[in-house]
Amino acid sequence: MIDITLLGTAALMPLPDRALTAALLSCGGHGILFDCGEGTQTAGRRARANPLGVDVIALTHYHGDHTFGLPGLLQTMHAMGRQAPLLITGPAGLREAMAPILALAGHTDFSVALEPMPEGGLDLPERFPGWPARTRLAAFPTAHRGPSQGYTFTLGREGRFDPDRARALGVPQGLWRRLQAGETAEGTSGPVAPSEVVGPPRRGLKFVFSGDTRPCPALVEAARGADLMICEATFADEGVAEAINRHGHTLFSQAGAMAAEAGVQRLWLAHFSQAVGDPAEHLPLARAHFPAAECGEDGKRITLRFDAGSAGGEDLPRAGTAGPR
Amino acid sequence: MIDITLLGTAALMPLPDRALTAALLSCGGHGILFDCGEGTQTAGRRARANPLGVDVIALTHYHGDHTFGLPGLLQTMHAMGRQAPLLITGPAGLREAMAPILALAGHTDFSVALEPMPEGGLDLPERFPGWPARTRLAAFPTAHRGPSQGYTFTLGREGRFDPDRARALGVPQGLWRRLQAGETAEGTSGPVAPSEVVGPPRRGLKFVFSGDTRPCPALVEAARGADLMICEATFADEGVAEAINRHGHTLFSQAGAMAAEAGVQRLWLAHFSQAVGDPAEHLPLARAHFPAAECGEDGKRITLRFDAGSAGGEDLPRAGTAGPR
Repeated sequence: MIDITLLGTAALMPLPDRALTAALLSCGGHGILFDCGEGTQTAGRRARANPLGVDVIALTHYHGDHTFGLPGLLQTMHAMGRQAPLLITGPAGLREAMAPILALAGHTDFSVALEPMPEGGLDLPERFPGWPARTRLAAFPTAHRGPSQGYTFTLGREGRFDPDRARALGVPQGLWRRLQAGETAEGTSGPVAPSEVVGPPRRGLKFVFSGDTRPCPALVEAARGADLMICEATFADEGVAEAINRHGHTLFSQAGAMAAEAGVQRLWLAHFSQAVGDPAEHLPLARAHFPAAECGEDGKRITLRFDAGSAGGEDLPRAGTAGPR
Repeated sequence: MIDITLLGTAALMPLPDRALTAALLSCGGHGILFDCGEGTQTAGRRARANPLGVDVIALTHYHGDHTFGLPGLLQTMHAMGRQAPLLITGPAGLREAMAPILALAGHTDFSVALEPMPEGGLDLPERFPGWPARTRLAAFPTAHRGPSQGYTFTLGREGRFDPDRARALGVPQGLWRRLQAGETAEGTSGPVAPSEVVGPPRRGLKFVFSGDTRPCPALVEAARGADLMICEATFADEGVAEAINRHGHTLFSQAGAMAAEAGVQRLWLAHFSQAVGDPAEHLPLARAHFPAAECGEDGKRITLRFDAGSAGGEDLPRAGTAGPR
């Protein structure tokens, strides 16, 4: 189960009813914040999706509308007594970009690590004990101005467990969870391998956060089959497509086209220019390509769950996925 | 006429319905912003009191809740096409405190001057052509942690003009304004000095912004006879007065006592700790000392005007005081 809250939908500057684009992901009681513009901490409180406890802040790039909320957020984390180490990640230039931000934030009682995303992504439970198994954060390059990247978050799903087979092999029920976790367990006729009772991994959950970008193949590739794609759609006016793309941004229509090409389940548009008065008016431009497209709204929230379809098998309850805080 | 809008009333961290404490002053179409925490630009838009055009940003000190909105505000000013030079002033350490902020803000098409307040205050029309005559911004030391200061803004008022006397001396009506501005004008029997037709300067208008401070004599002195004092009242609990004061803050009761001692016309409390749930509940603590005390609220606005009382004289309309933008 993944809980996603879109904290804001504005581009460039915060508006009274439109905070800067950022999203909070919560999974198994742990969190990741995607971008942090001025006012993100307030937008979080307003949406009752508090980013103070996240383990990771994943920055898509270093423009002010995606980073100027960091000094205040770090100070608030400190003021609220945070002790847990924080990881801030982002594209090339992270250390240089964070220098004035950390200088402003000053001392914090918790440590702040600045680390690029590893090739192949970050295994979250390996890096932060307590994260649900098979959770991974990965970055992909996008096409904005200067270094930029988007992110995928995936929650893998173990194969289907066959309790009848486990019983037949004489594995006591207390050891089933061990088998599902990939370990062998003792049956009545000797060791039983996981593959004997657990099917192949099933489709998990995937979330994609585009950051700022012009339409680009890497985003489509990263978004393939995602359950939710939050995609920037800075402008709606088709007449200025070339200029907008040259500026490293995407149109409503182009976001829809990418979502369709990537075969995502859901598309939320975000990062609306101040010039986009009411995003809903322009939604048909995206829906022409991807009928399920929705406009993002500050505080819009969704819980992504595994497909039901467990006929013929059984889902053991997973430890550590007690839901978002 | 002075227009004051309180943009926020929070301390330390912005809350969903309480922006960080800052105030916008507007006079004759020109403006001064007092403090700029994270979210001040949004609070301004929300209050329809846009700080983008101010000539001066007057910082009371350099803690994050009073300064972290600057990088975003400067970028928004730039994005909106500002060309006019901006003055940022504050207590000792201004240049060091602003270094990371200006580094974050990056290039702006307008110049940013960092200047301490001059002794005796800043003559605004002298520094920024177009400000109404007799407007002055001055700083006074306060008692917070580290360098800190509060501000007074004064709008002086010319003496009463005696039209009967001017007529008797044969000064054509077209020259009256010159006399009131302090210049001589030709009458039927020779030059007429201003003092012959203009009385002594009258009581003007005064606004005081405390910034963060424990109760201190300099604030009381600066606030004497002010038309409006916005005073920090971070905490209400009398039981922790000593600790609060040691921390450089003021209680509701102490703000009231200072206002009473200074003989101000109006007191607005602000800079409420998160621990102060509903400030109105604690207002009686301030009113016990100063019955007219009011709680500040985000967006609270007042227009301060000269006293009526013009019997026996006449106020010539003043150029350049067309009211706030």
